[in-house]
Amino acid sequence: MSYRGLCKEFLESCGVSIGDTVLIKKKDIEYRGMLLNRSKGLDDIHVVLKLDNGYNIGVNITDVQLTLLKKGEKPKIELPPLDVEKNMGKMNISIISTGGTVASIIDYKTGAVHPAFTADDLLRANPELVDLANIQGKAILNILSENMKPDYWIKTARSVVDEINGGSDGVILAHGTDTMHYTSAALSFILNTPVPVVLTGAQRSSDRPSSDAFLNLMMSVTAAKSDLAEVMVCMHATENDSYGYLHRGTKARKMHTSRRDTFRSINTQPLARIKNGKIKILDKDTEYNKRKDGGSPEIKDDLEPRVALIKSFPGISPEIIHYHLDKGYRGLVIEGTGLGHVPEDIIPALERAYDSGIPVVMTSQCIYGRVNMNVYSTGRRLVASGVISARDMLPETAYVKLIWTLGQTEDIKEVERIMQTNLRGEIEEKTSQKYFLI
Amino acid sequence: MSYRGLCKEFLESCGVSIGDTVLIKKKDIEYRGMLLNRSKGLDDIHVVLKLDNGYNIGVNITDVQLTLLKKGEKPKIELPPLDVEKNMGKMNISIISTGGTVASIIDYKTGAVHPAFTADDLLRANPELVDLANIQGKAILNILSENMKPDYWIKTARSVVDEINGGSDGVILAHGTDTMHYTSAALSFILNTPVPVVLTGAQRSSDRPSSDAFLNLMMSVTAAKSDLAEVMVCMHATENDSYGYLHRGTKARKMHTSRRDTFRSINTQPLARIKNGKIKILDKDTEYNKRKDGGSPEIKDDLEPRVALIKSFPGISPEIIHYHLDKGYRGLVIEGTGLGHVPEDIIPALERAYDSGIPVVMTSQCIYGRVNMNVYSTGRRLVASGVISARDMLPETAYVKLIWTLGQTEDIKEVERIMQTNLRGEIEEKTSQKYFLI
Repeated sequence: MSYRGLCKEFLESCGVSIGDTVLIKKKDIEYRGMLLNRSKGLDDIHVVLKLDNGYNIGVNITDVQLTLLKKGEKPKIELPPLDVEKNMGKMNISIISTGGTVASIIDYKTGAVHPAFTADDLLRANPELVDLANIQGKAILNILSENMKPDYWIKTARSVVDEINGGSDGVILAHGTDTMHYTSAALSFILNTPVPVVLTGAQRSSDRPSSDAFLNLMMSVTAAKSDLAEVMVCMHATENDSYGYLHRGTKARKMHTSRRDTFRSINTQPLARIKNGKIKILDKDTEYNKRKDGGSPEIKDDLEPRVALIKSFPGISPEIIHYHLDKGYRGLVIEGTGLGHVPEDIIPALERAYDSGIPVVMTSQCIYGRVNMNVYSTGRRLVASGVISARDMLPETAYVKLIWTLGQTEDIKEVERIMQTNLRGEIEEKTSQKYFLI
Repeated sequence: MSYRGLCKEFLESCGVSIGDTVLIKKKDIEYRGMLLNRSKGLDDIHVVLKLDNGYNIGVNITDVQLTLLKKGEKPKIELPPLDVEKNMGKMNISIISTGGTVASIIDYKTGAVHPAFTADDLLRANPELVDLANIQGKAILNILSENMKPDYWIKTARSVVDEINGGSDGVILAHGTDTMHYTSAALSFILNTPVPVVLTGAQRSSDRPSSDAFLNLMMSVTAAKSDLAEVMVCMHATENDSYGYLHRGTKARKMHTSRRDTFRSINTQPLARIKNGKIKILDKDTEYNKRKDGGSPEIKDDLEPRVALIKSFPGISPEIIHYHLDKGYRGLVIEGTGLGHVPEDIIPALERAYDSGIPVVMTSQCIYGRVNMNVYSTGRRLVASGVISARDMLPETAYVKLIWTLGQTEDIKEVERIMQTNLRGEIEEKTSQKYFLI
């Protein structure tokens, strides 16, 4: 939205426009930042600045001095496609872009970050990638990852398969971090891959000096060239640029809103560490699928998206469970408390689900640890009501797995069997106590 | 349920009954444990044992050898009330029991843990407590904490006030661990206390040798005698019995299903460490309310329980938001992804909430970090739709605070102001980056 009234006159008199970097002095205070568009609902005596720390503030223009420091530039987006010659001595790595911060730029009109780059742009911004492998890029979506959904998981999985069938030796998926762990879990169940499939992203956009996008992409190329034929998440292991972790796609979780090392393996250790272009398996006894060059990817992409993930809390009404059953949901995943509990007055609604052939899977909002419904009376009543334990699966992974499982079978006993069988490293037997807060 | 058929005959022939400890040999395997009642739906060739590790298993009795190791004993529960003489040189500490594992025993009939002990029983099981203070106990509820609800928060808060007004120098609340952090947040907002109010619990029941109940109670007495006039959570800091942490009631969260050190301070450090009966403030610059002996507790216990805590996930339907609005909920707390996002197709439903005067508060399912809806386009649309940032508040604390705030005012602007004002340490300005996974 453009400025109006007093603000408009004032800005015009100073010769500044949206996107310019300005200094505003007011009594003893100075604000330095980029002039943003007027926010919705803002009056006509405030302007909005994006400060260098990334925050936006509104400044009242009464009695201020404004100095233009630098005219704003719009990012160049009209460039010819890249044409890099293929080197037969290098591996062929595909980068599929779905959007997200790793493929984003700041919108100079609003100061907000928008998904905008194509895979080509990613390469252009990170030309060093070309030294490591024959990189080919493809943008299949251009969304922020909060808008990911099961239909897009299918689209993404099919694109991965296309790349592998087209000769790719490893696939990197540039993805927003918000729901990267949901997508990595989805691809883990949908795909059986002969080569590495690596999801990566960034917590700061590529056009900012502090961006983690470059190192995450570089490390992902190393991961994509490795022997680990699994679906994995590759992100910073620490707050600085020292090294990265490779997490199993079913065990990763975004654990911090803004830190670069936000992704952690839960109830297990990361699969591998990546440092200086080298990959090291952290536990030599780790079992993993090894690369099968020339192998064909398998895909099982029937999904049943009518599944809900419901967090339990003190005072939750049984009506919310009945609502989902009335609406035709085919499965429910509960984020219970502690070892996997809900208020007892919820239990009859869960019994109704079971009696209607709707599987209910119990996870824990503790995040760490393992569901065990055999210890307390509430848990035992839940088991008697047919509630399925997710064991040490993450709630997010259990949600994705139930969507996938219901795509494979409608038989509730078979659903229970699949949910309780470790398919892609999502269930581990003995490690839940040891790996806490790492 | 009793055993029947083959099992019944077999057990009678061996002279064993429910509750006995037995050894079952089968080929090369031995199982040692307590014989439990038959589980619902079990056939007549399996018996159920509670193993020493706490797990229950079913054993097929075909071709087994069974040896009786020890006849089962039922816990003694018929004891005269305690009558300990008051010592004027000691402080008066009240223990209010609400149930939970800290006040539980194993039900020898089913192997499940039931809330059963009274406050007197707690004292009897932990006679050393009497050396530390004049302890008086009171059981106000006898529930597992998954059954806690806003009405019980009020009952609990009033009991705390009664104890303080009756001369208590500090109040300990024995509480189940599942929802202890919801209750500690609730009491933080409801009460303004002149003396310490300490919630504690246990991850293993008091009648088991591995119980953490005793040390947690001992440390809680130390905390209740201290100068910290706040609502706090006192639990193990490590997996062994070395020391404990005192967490601010609004910043604590149960982070592991079964470890003793499950409670952690999120986005901040614990208030204090308790070791060998001594309390140490971890950061000398920490601001806290100091004990006011003889001071009166204040209580504001108007609550609006028609609030829901909703976790966002890929594929969530806007209908779920509309459902809550249609049902007359007065406030919603969303557990968004990343910096505080939801799928964009949810936003119109949240706008409807705002237009109907229903506050929507955004938290992050990352758990760690801080909501910031000014960075990405989705966040900015949410802000424009009137969604309130919970900043670095825990989702559970934001849920409780909204219930409390709506009890104080119906004005949505005032709700926004209160939700964004730090009242009880629930919002911190600068620490969200530093305290990650500690």
